[in-house]
Amino acid sequence: MFRNQYDNDISTWSPQGRLHQIEYALEAVKQGSASVGLRSNTHVVLLALKRSSGELASHQQKLFRIDSHVGIAIAGLVSDARVLSNFMRTECMKSKMMYDRPIPGSRLVSLIGDKAQVNTQNYGRRPYGVGLLVGSYDEGTGPHLYECLPNANCLEYYAISIGAKSQSAKTYLEKFAKDFGEADLDALVMHGLHALRETLQQDKELNLNNCAIGIVGKDHDWELIEGDRLNGYLDRLETGASTTGATAAGDLVQGEAMDTTEL
Amino acid sequence: MFRNQYDNDISTWSPQGRLHQIEYALEAVKQGSASVGLRSNTHVVLLALKRSSGELASHQQKLFRIDSHVGIAIAGLVSDARVLSNFMRTECMKSKMMYDRPIPGSRLVSLIGDKAQVNTQNYGRRPYGVGLLVGSYDEGTGPHLYECLPNANCLEYYAISIGAKSQSAKTYLEKFAKDFGEADLDALVMHGLHALRETLQQDKELNLNNCAIGIVGKDHDWELIEGDRLNGYLDRLETGASTTGATAAGDLVQGEAMDTTEL
Amino acid sequence: MFRNQYDNDISTWSPQGRLHQIEYALEAVKQGSASVGLRSNTHVVLLALKRSSGELASHQQKLFRIDSHVGIAIAGLVSDARVLSNFMRTECMKSKMMYDRPIPGSRLVSLIGDKAQVNTQNYGRRPYGVGLLVGSYDEGTGPHLYECLPNANCLEYYAISIGAKSQSAKTYLEKFAKDFGEADLDALVMHGLHALRETLQQDKELNLNNCAIGIVGKDHDWELIEGDRLNGYLDRLETGASTTGATAAGDLVQGEAMDTTEL
Amino acid sequence: MFRNQYDNDISTWSPQGRLHQIEYALEAVKQGSASVGLRSNTHVVLLALKRSSGELASHQQKLFRIDSHVGIAIAGLVSDARVLSNFMRTECMKSKMMYDRPIPGSRLVSLIGDKAQVNTQNYGRRPYGVGLLVGSYDEGTGPHLYECLPNANCLEYYAISIGAKSQSAKTYLEKFAKDFGEADLDALVMHGLHALRETLQQDKELNLNNCAIGIVGKDHDWELIEGDRLNGYLDRLETGASTTGATAAGDLVQGEAMDTTEL
Amino acid sequence: MFRNQYDNDISTWSPQGRLHQIEYALEAVKQGSASVGLRSNTHVVLLALKRSSGELASHQQKLFRIDSHVGIAIAGLVSDARVLSNFMRTECMKSKMMYDRPIPGSRLVSLIGDKAQVNTQNYGRRPYGVGLLVGSYDEGTGPHLYECLPNANCLEYYAISIGAKSQSAKTYLEKFAKDFGEADLDALVMHGLHALRETLQQDKELNLNNCAIGIVGKDHDWELIEGDRLNGYLDRLETGASTTGATAAGDLVQGEAMDTTEL
Amino acid sequence: MFRNQYDNDISTWSPQGRLHQIEYALEAVKQGSASVGLRSNTHVVLLALKRSSGELASHQQKLFRIDSHVGIAIAGLVSDARVLSNFMRTECMKSKMMYDRPIPGSRLVSLIGDKAQVNTQNYGRRPYGVGLLVGSYDEGTGPHLYECLPNANCLEYYAISIGAKSQSAKTYLEKFAKDFGEADLDALVMHGLHALRETLQQDKELNLNNCAIGIVGKDHDWELIEGDRLNGYLDRLETGASTTGATAAGDLVQGEAMDTTEL
Amino acid sequence: MFRNQYDNDISTWSPQGRLHQIEYALEAVKQGSASVGLRSNTHVVLLALKRSSGELASHQQKLFRIDSHVGIAIAGLVSDARVLSNFMRTECMKSKMMYDRPIPGSRLVSLIGDKAQVNTQNYGRRPYGVGLLVGSYDEGTGPHLYECLPNANCLEYYAISIGAKSQSAKTYLEKFAKDFGEADLDALVMHGLHALRETLQQDKELNLNNCAIGIVGKDHDWELIEGDRLNGYLDRLETGASTTGATAAGDLVQGEAMDTTEL
Repeated sequence: MFRNQYDNDISTWSPQGRLHQIEYALEAVKQGSASVGLRSNTHVVLLALKRSSGELASHQQKLFRIDSHVGIAIAGLVSDARVLSNFMRTECMKSKMMYDRPIPGSRLVSLIGDKAQVNTQNYGRRPYGVGLLVGSYDEGTGPHLYECLPNANCLEYYAISIGAKSQSAKTYLEKFAKDFGEADLDALVMHGLHALRETLQQDKELNLNNCAIGIVGKDHDWELIEGDRLNGYLDRLETGASTTGATAAGDLVQGEAMDTTEL
Repeated sequence: MFRNQYDNDISTWSPQGRLHQIEYALEAVKQGSASVGLRSNTHVVLLALKRSSGELASHQQKLFRIDSHVGIAIAGLVSDARVLSNFMRTECMKSKMMYDRPIPGSRLVSLIGDKAQVNTQNYGRRPYGVGLLVGSYDEGTGPHLYECLPNANCLEYYAISIGAKSQSAKTYLEKFAKDFGEADLDALVMHGLHALRETLQQDKELNLNNCAIGIVGKDHDWELIEGDRLNGYLDRLETGASTTGATAAGDLVQGEAMDTTEL
Repeated sequence: MFRNQYDNDISTWSPQGRLHQIEYALEAVKQGSASVGLRSNTHVVLLALKRSSGELASHQQKLFRIDSHVGIAIAGLVSDARVLSNFMRTECMKSKMMYDRPIPGSRLVSLIGDKAQVNTQNYGRRPYGVGLLVGSYDEGTGPHLYECLPNANCLEYYAISIGAKSQSAKTYLEKFAKDFGEADLDALVMHGLHALRETLQQDKELNLNNCAIGIVGKDHDWELIEGDRLNGYLDRLETGASTTGATAAGDLVQGEAMDTTEL
Repeated sequence: MFRNQYDNDISTWSPQGRLHQIEYALEAVKQGSASVGLRSNTHVVLLALKRSSGELASHQQKLFRIDSHVGIAIAGLVSDARVLSNFMRTECMKSKMMYDRPIPGSRLVSLIGDKAQVNTQNYGRRPYGVGLLVGSYDEGTGPHLYECLPNANCLEYYAISIGAKSQSAKTYLEKFAKDFGEADLDALVMHGLHALRETLQQDKELNLNNCAIGIVGKDHDWELIEGDRLNGYLDRLETGASTTGATAAGDLVQGEAMDTTEL
Repeated sequence: MFRNQYDNDISTWSPQGRLHQIEYALEAVKQGSASVGLRSNTHVVLLALKRSSGELASHQQKLFRIDSHVGIAIAGLVSDARVLSNFMRTECMKSKMMYDRPIPGSRLVSLIGDKAQVNTQNYGRRPYGVGLLVGSYDEGTGPHLYECLPNANCLEYYAISIGAKSQSAKTYLEKFAKDFGEADLDALVMHGLHALRETLQQDKELNLNNCAIGIVGKDHDWELIEGDRLNGYLDRLETGASTTGATAAGDLVQGEAMDTTEL
Repeated sequence: MFRNQYDNDISTWSPQGRLHQIEYALEAVKQGSASVGLRSNTHVVLLALKRSSGELASHQQKLFRIDSHVGIAIAGLVSDARVLSNFMRTECMKSKMMYDRPIPGSRLVSLIGDKAQVNTQNYGRRPYGVGLLVGSYDEGTGPHLYECLPNANCLEYYAISIGAKSQSAKTYLEKFAKDFGEADLDALVMHGLHALRETLQQDKELNLNNCAIGIVGKDHDWELIEGDRLNGYLDRLETGASTTGATAAGDLVQGEAMDTTEL
Repeated sequence: MFRNQYDNDISTWSPQGRLHQIEYALEAVKQGSASVGLRSNTHVVLLALKRSSGELASHQQKLFRIDSHVGIAIAGLVSDARVLSNFMRTECMKSKMMYDRPIPGSRLVSLIGDKAQVNTQNYGRRPYGVGLLVGSYDEGTGPHLYECLPNANCLEYYAISIGAKSQSAKTYLEKFAKDFGEADLDALVMHGLHALRETLQQDKELNLNNCAIGIVGKDHDWELIEGDRLNGYLDRLETGASTTGATAAGDLVQGEAMDTTEL
């Protein structure tokens, strides 16, 4: 019944100083299936929940290699993610050609932010509808984990989760964050899987088909672990109940959104 | 009575983080007559139901050759499909001229996705109103089957169906999917015809005029089978009843849409 | 009382996956006076009903020569038809200059389709408001008859009719279609005139002023027959009543449209 | 009370397949003072009724020389007519420079049609608000008379009238049309004046100030006859009453329009 | 309560074939203070009423020199007049440079008309809000007086007035128009002042500050007469009452408009 | 309750021939703090009231040097004033480089007018929201004082005031205007301060912080007098009450506007 | 219930002469967490309150180095701030390359103002949603502190605060402003921290994570102090209660805004 007259247009401020279209685009990220990222002093691990588009589909990609030292996990519109990952790959190549060195992760996310900002200030465009977790291992400064959002903000994190029910994962990550710095890669991956499991609906479990793991780190080029190769990790998952209980209402809303994101 | 103020414009997010114009374009695909695709370890078979635009029309094309190793089946706006198939043919030629090799199917669908994404982010354009099934046989990696949709997503499948009543075909395909990998070409085609038959209205049957078959595979350049050449396959179709029963209401909706798509 | 909010703009999908502006442009074709096309194994014959813009006008053109091997008949906005026929003539010349051969009819209608599609996907343009019947005689493949519509679709037909009351002509054509293939030119023309007569209002007859015949075929460059030259054909028309009866309501609607099309 | 939502924009079709803005522009022609054209086998005569913008204005132009073999009469917006006549003069010069021959009248009106059509298909433009009668005498084909309207249609006529109350003039012209072909120039002019007189309001008469005559024909370059030179013709006008009686209501409507056109 | 949906946009026709925005721009001319022009066989005289923007302003210009043989008087938006007078000056210089002769007045007003017409046919522009009286003395053809309006029409006059209460001046001019042709310059100026006085509000008189006179003619380059130089003329003005009586209501409306025009 | 449909767009005329957006921009000038200008036969003096943006701000500029012979005072949007003063400085430099002489003040304000006019005729732009007083001392013609407003009008004045409560200053200036011509610089400045004081709210006084004086004249390059240097003048200000009494209502309105202008 | 029709568009004036979109963008600055700036005769100190985006985020940047002699603090949209700081860095480099000297702070803020003004006058853009405090130490003129706002205004201050609850900080700064000029760097920093503390919500305290300090001055290149390095300053903070009491209502509003700014 109430009509908001300030939320149809990316170039219109509301009287409260808000850009509603940016907030709505952030909503698209929240409706994608969850991704989780965390880092130790030596590695970054990215994990993602893969929604199934039916048993006939061979697989659905949520983790992407950008360069040997950079990978990303996404939540939201896959087609927008593809545009951004193509952009990142091009920038990686340019850096190698022009400076003969891998682009630092901080520089890469800054470029994404600039590109995303343009879509928040010009009439006739829309903000990207995807959130990215960017993991990089840089010469000299080691592992880094960034979150890039449709509002063009890119922040660095020790551990972070985006997408549907990501708050449950964050709760887990905050609880064990103090252990991540010194954790070995194996422990780091297991922490990530535990966090990811928190984003599942109540009667679901992680399995070989619905999740993927990406690793980059010291002397460790980007590696994607999917399918049977997940067995070793999933077997060790404690079978304890989720530490957060999703309300039925929340689940319904997420279910509704499945058609528009990542399928 | 209720007016949605967020669904007139491709560059406007709804408060729920949805792009309604993309969803409406997906609806155009659902109203086209069905297409089916499935693959074995050696071949991809595409099949399509051809709606008749009257007995005077010589034929209506639903399957298109893109290159000797790639063909497509469509559901939705034929004119949009023609734009996209022209684009694909050009890309195939460019690959041959620049790299002296056939373009891999995965690369081709990625280019389609990029092209389609542009239409989902710029005011004054509309998303394409057509879905594509892309079958390719690539050097080294063998047969591939992809679905490309107006939301700019391109996923790989073992078997898939798009268009009106495609859910019935999917049900069939899921039931027999375990057999497709090792199936010989003949069996694969018959599975496809059975799946396609599920998309017919209750009192209709497949015949020489209302369907077509496309094949690409190992040592098998794209081949289109139509008209009398279908006889061998149609004769062997079991005459059993459809395994799914379309409701009258569903049929009406599909009938209504016939003018806007593929005619 | 009901306001459709999705039909003002060519770049907006309706929730049902329709592009209403395309459908409305098709309506403009239906309001033009009828044109008929049919083909034998050797010739294509196009016929058109010419609405009178008063007895002082010397004549009103509905059939146009494109090249010695191609002609068209139109229904709808004459000014849009002129744009498209200029375009076709230019393409014919380009083909001759670049390849030293007449452009095949199938290639020509494909180019029309591409041109028309652009007007269905860009805000600020409108779909063409004219339907074309394209008759060509091509080296090697013989006679062809195509229908090109504002929705950018171009289909091949054995026989077809467009414009006001064209359904009556189609009924005639379907009844006798089996005879067209082997018919000699004279018989083919008489079939066309009978079909065209079906589109007349109940108390009208074909005469030297209100119709025209175009012929292209084997060893027969495009020939336009109008005025006195029609005598030989009209004399032989059976004087039987129309096989379809137009309702008064239908006639009124068509009368209303006379000012906007082809005058 | 009823709001037509399809008539504000030249690039929007109505559900009935009409372009209302074109029809409204045709209305502007109907509100201009009348012009009349007719031709014999040797000459074209154009005549126009000149509305007075007060007794202080030296004269108001309705007939324009385009080239020695072409002249026009207008009804509607004078400023739009000036744009079109400038365009025509340029085309005449181009023809002389490039081909060393006068442009044929048929070619000239075809170019006007193409120019006018652009304004009927692009958002942000409006159709021209003027109708033209074009008279030409061409080498080989002799005299021609064309009508060019805002809908971009250009038709050839034996005799025609446009503008306010032009129907009355048409009635006269149709009555005597059979005589025009063999008429000598003097008789042709007198027929034109009689037709023009029919468009006057009931208590008005043609005089030296309110009409003008243009002639082009065999061995007769464009000649404009105005003012005292009209005496010879006006004296011979039969003083009989108008054959059509304008209703008071019709006069009022025309009076209302006087400010917007040709003043 | 009634909303006109056709009057917001210069590129939209009303159903009655009118362009309301042009009519509204004409209204801006009517709200400017009056200007008067008249010509004899040897001279053109332009006169203007200068509204005061307070006693501190040194003067307010209504008459402008364009070239030694051309001057203008304006009514309406001064800033639009400046754009047009700059344009005219440039055209005068171009004529001298390219053809080594002064531009004829008829050519100059034709160029103004073309420039003004562009603003009446393209969305996003507005018609000029100023009327011009253009006086020129041309080699061979002698003195000319033109009126150029926002509708892009330019007419020649013997005598004319534009702006607020200009009808009263026209009444005077029509009464004495027969005398202007043979009048000497002095008599012509006095006629102009009498006409201008008719446009004053009832209790106002012409004085050294509120009027100006411009003269161009045979052997008489453009001359502007203002301030004390007006004494000779004003002293001779008959002190008789105005021949037309402005109603109080009319005065109020004009007073209201004073802020928007010429100040 | 009443909605004006003609005041949202700079390129739309109201039925009364007004451009409301220009009038609204003039309102922005009226809401800026006042500026005053006056001239003798040898000098121009500009004065401005500086609103405080808090005691921590070092100063707020209202007077700007353009060149050694030109300075301006502003009222309205400071950011728009900066654009215009940058433009003026560039024009001053161009004049020196191209003609080796200072640009005359009349030429400079004419260029401002042209630049401002563009913003009053093109959709998507807005009129500038600032008024300028321009003081110049030109070779040969001596001192000049101009007012340039958002409606693109530039008038010359003996003395003038713009901004909030400027009417009170005008009343003072008109009273003493007869003395300005022969006044020496010192007297001229004191007249300006008295006039400026009239624009203060009732309980305020001029002081070292809230006003500034600019001077340009014969052998006197632009000089800005602020802060302690004002002491000599302020001490001599008569302490008499303001000659005009601002109503409380007026003050409130002005207070409301403080955030949008000049802060 | 009341709809403001003048506040959706940056290029539309309200009848009161306001540009509402600029005012709404200023609101975005008020909703960012506070930043404080103050300067002595030798140094500029910038301080900022860093909102936490969760305990997993490594840090959130509010202070940015532009050049060795310039730094900024921000409040509002971080992504807009990044665009502006990139612009500033480029201008610093250009100055060094073209003039071989650091750009003066006054020149830099003037360029920001020009860039921001463009976004306040062109349809389809929006004003920047960020406020900047710019601190510079310039050769010859020493330390400078500027505030740059979305309305394109840039003012110089002795001390200033922007962002949420900045009024409380201003109250502190005004109270002690007289001491800043002669204060040594240490005292200046402590004053800044006291002012910043005033912007905290009632039960919060400054700590190593939620604030940062930037310093530039004589022989002191831009230095950023964060984390443990803050210890020395924070220990000395008086633990007295805030001198201003935020109302609960105000706090709620600020809390609501946290998602849209700086996170």
